[in-house]
Amino acid sequence: MEKLREIVREGRRVGEEDPRRIVHSFKVGVALVLVSSFYYYQPFGPFTDYFGINAMWAVMTVVVVFEFSVGATLSKGLNRGVATLVAGGLALGAHQLASLSGRTIEPILLATFVFVTAALATFVRFFPRVKATFDYGMLIFILTFSLISLSQFRDEEILDLAESRLSTVLVGGVSCILISIFVCPVWAGQDLHSLLVSNLDTLSHFLQEFGDEYFEARTYGNIKVVEKRRRNLERYKSVLNSKSDEDSLANFAKWEPPHGKFGFRHPWKQYLVVAALVRQCAHRIDALNSYINSNFQIPIDIKKKLEEPFRRMSLESGKAMKEASISLKKMTKSSSYDIHIINSQSACKALSTLLKSGILNDVEPLQMVSLLTTVSLLNDIVNITEKISESVRELASAARFRNKMKPTEPSVSLKKLDSGSTGCAMPINSRDGDHVVTILLSDDDKDDIDDDDDTSNIVLDDDTINEKSEDGEIHVQTSCVREVGMMPEHSLGVRILQI
Amino acid sequence: MEKLREIVREGRRVGEEDPRRIVHSFKVGVALVLVSSFYYYQPFGPFTDYFGINAMWAVMTVVVVFEFSVGATLSKGLNRGVATLVAGGLALGAHQLASLSGRTIEPILLATFVFVTAALATFVRFFPRVKATFDYGMLIFILTFSLISLSQFRDEEILDLAESRLSTVLVGGVSCILISIFVCPVWAGQDLHSLLVSNLDTLSHFLQEFGDEYFEARTYGNIKVVEKRRRNLERYKSVLNSKSDEDSLANFAKWEPPHGKFGFRHPWKQYLVVAALVRQCAHRIDALNSYINSNFQIPIDIKKKLEEPFRRMSLESGKAMKEASISLKKMTKSSSYDIHIINSQSACKALSTLLKSGILNDVEPLQMVSLLTTVSLLNDIVNITEKISESVRELASAARFRNKMKPTEPSVSLKKLDSGSTGCAMPINSRDGDHVVTILLSDDDKDDIDDDDDTSNIVLDDDTINEKSEDGEIHVQTSCVREVGMMPEHSLGVRILQI
Repeated sequence: MEKLREIVREGRRVGEEDPRRIVHSFKVGVALVLVSSFYYYQPFGPFTDYFGINAMWAVMTVVVVFEFSVGATLSKGLNRGVATLVAGGLALGAHQLASLSGRTIEPILLATFVFVTAALATFVRFFPRVKATFDYGMLIFILTFSLISLSQFRDEEILDLAESRLSTVLVGGVSCILISIFVCPVWAGQDLHSLLVSNLDTLSHFLQEFGDEYFEARTYGNIKVVEKRRRNLERYKSVLNSKSDEDSLANFAKWEPPHGKFGFRHPWKQYLVVAALVRQCAHRIDALNSYINSNFQIPIDIKKKLEEPFRRMSLESGKAMKEASISLKKMTKSSSYDIHIINSQSACKALSTLLKSGILNDVEPLQMVSLLTTVSLLNDIVNITEKISESVRELASAARFRNKMKPTEPSVSLKKLDSGSTGCAMPINSRDGDHVVTILLSDDDKDDIDDDDDTSNIVLDDDTINEKSEDGEIHVQTSCVREVGMMPEHSLGVRILQI
Repeated sequence: MEKLREIVREGRRVGEEDPRRIVHSFKVGVALVLVSSFYYYQPFGPFTDYFGINAMWAVMTVVVVFEFSVGATLSKGLNRGVATLVAGGLALGAHQLASLSGRTIEPILLATFVFVTAALATFVRFFPRVKATFDYGMLIFILTFSLISLSQFRDEEILDLAESRLSTVLVGGVSCILISIFVCPVWAGQDLHSLLVSNLDTLSHFLQEFGDEYFEARTYGNIKVVEKRRRNLERYKSVLNSKSDEDSLANFAKWEPPHGKFGFRHPWKQYLVVAALVRQCAHRIDALNSYINSNFQIPIDIKKKLEEPFRRMSLESGKAMKEASISLKKMTKSSSYDIHIINSQSACKALSTLLKSGILNDVEPLQMVSLLTTVSLLNDIVNITEKISESVRELASAARFRNKMKPTEPSVSLKKLDSGSTGCAMPINSRDGDHVVTILLSDDDKDDIDDDDDTSNIVLDDDTINEKSEDGEIHVQTSCVREVGMMPEHSLGVRILQI
């Protein structure tokens, strides 16, 4: 009884996790009843005669071919159909050849054919490319070839058999494919797309929260709240092992016809490129996560000074990732992550300048290990984030995402980047159609870098800008690429792009 | 033509990669010919009569059930057999029930039965535990239930059908299982075991070579040699993505009967625990690998001082991992990795003491980032190595690995550990039956720590000891757990265990 209740609970969990599973179960039931009633009311009556075998094949095709996603169903259905056709043709030839050779040699010849074909096809199944795409087809090929060539029918009967076998496979396969496409379809491509978006979101959430977790001892609060936040933060762990899911989804997605926002030849392979980078980033985050609660004993004032660029590195990477995920989700070309990438890179530079300034000279090296490892991990994450945004950009152009609407009226808002150190603006390569205005401002608040309140006023208010750019309004891109010693100090550049 | 040559080349590669694939292909061919000739010479003749369907089922069972490894074949065969039995029984009941209800309601009732069973079973396939183990069984359950309950035979005929269907599945399944077990068997368990051993070896190779790669600019040699070494070193990358292979092997291994050195209820799950730790270590190594060619600008004399504990940390972790892999490979309980773990930990301590001594005080923090990240990664690796050896020990005891032979004559060899810093010996928890001798030596060569030649003399000559212990001779375990400030300085402990 307890066992039964547990099963029901598990069933509810599985159903709630993805309600499409319940729908899928109904679809399978419907397909099966449809196909079997089609054969049930055949003139010959079902299963009692020669044609009964065919009804069996149709029911079998439905049970075996109907998979959760359209891509998987199509892949199996097409594999089964084509393999049956090819194997049927070959088997007919083999049968003909064997029957010409007389009654004693015939069985030996047939056995040899079956042996060679089966062994060869089994071996070919080990080829990586065949395994990925045509594994099921090879299986059905062996099956059909053996069944038809071993049968001792006369040639006309065999033609009948081959034809009816093909027609039943067609009836079963086509009903599966039609039902899976037209009744609440589950597209593997859509799932892959959503998985990638949600993985980006998860990492972005971690990076945006990281600063708070690292610098505030947020472990001393309401236990339930802390635990919930912790669980939320550690959702990134699901990204670490997402490879096999992504691979199989991409494998099915390439079988799917154009649907929704996904056109013909949608670049599913590029999704795997982005996904691999996202996973690489997740592994860095996993390492970072182990340093969250390391209480490094660094004087509080130094900690305060480091906090700002630290927070900004992770926050801006997180925002860039969020922008990339929004661009992917809405399937629009976007460069709104550029600004966050540049901000995070400038925070990197600010941090290194801070470290160069000798701020840590009095700290013992051993106490720096955890701190500097965090720095280098964050640095890695900033770099990977740039790569991710690059690969999302490539995906956007390969998939021909639409551009954002042109703005009608430019509404410019100027903000200053905190300089924090020797900094300068350098013009970025102008993209086509952009109006680039480069303003060089003299910046004298170098002494303010330690003042947190002031800094937070200087930092760009990115949310405002992003929301505007999402509405198709003017987009202000503030760049601050610092190359120490290459350009005059204390100059800050604000670059205005009209997109 | 070019295409064909490419296919042949690919075939040769696939065959050379694992020659058992060729053998497997032959086995499938043989099984198919055997089973079909069994039915070919039946009194009724094949495929032309009622019993012909059964020959088809037998051939089909062989094609579908025969998998590469014994475990996979058994899993599919048993799933198919049991599912056919259960579904056959239920379908008979359903058929009986429906036939009692009169000719008009009968088809409706049957369709309802099929619908409910198919939908329910399809839904249950989404349960994670069912999916992992009984997915194929559920498929066959739906298939058999639909086929038998939809057939319009009279009850005796149905009994005949069910019985013959079961017997053919048995004939097909049992021949597959017998051939796969007795003709050049491929055991998934053995494969999992070897995969884990080879993964441990790969990581161990990296760690043992890491010191040379990091400290010697070995990139300026013969290009081919450098490339080969590099390729060898980067074999660890295969470990990063081994999860899905390991999971499926472990899943199949649990179906396999005792074979070779693997007894009944061999703890395959514990293999996955070890494998997860190994993968975790591989990810740290992946991060480490990116620092190999970072030429950090640290004064040469400081570099020299750091080199020794650095090298020892990675070398000793590598050796510990090698010992763990040997223990696993030979399936013997071993504690020969303990000494390397302790050595690597003492190298960690030596390194931190060195860092504490202010050796890096004049180095700029920015230049330390790469160095200290390497330190912290190596530190992580040392910790993970300890966890790995712990989990291998648990595996050894869960799998009841045999103990090494008792030594007949104790031959003691004493060596000193380099102290390198404030150090002391602490007695380790004695394991049952061990004779523990703790010797405290006064150690005055603290000034020698910078002298590489001297240090290399002091370091334990581990290979000698390990070889001895593998032959069952006396085992010397030298421990040097340092707790600065807790014990008198300059005391070194050598502990002799008789195992």
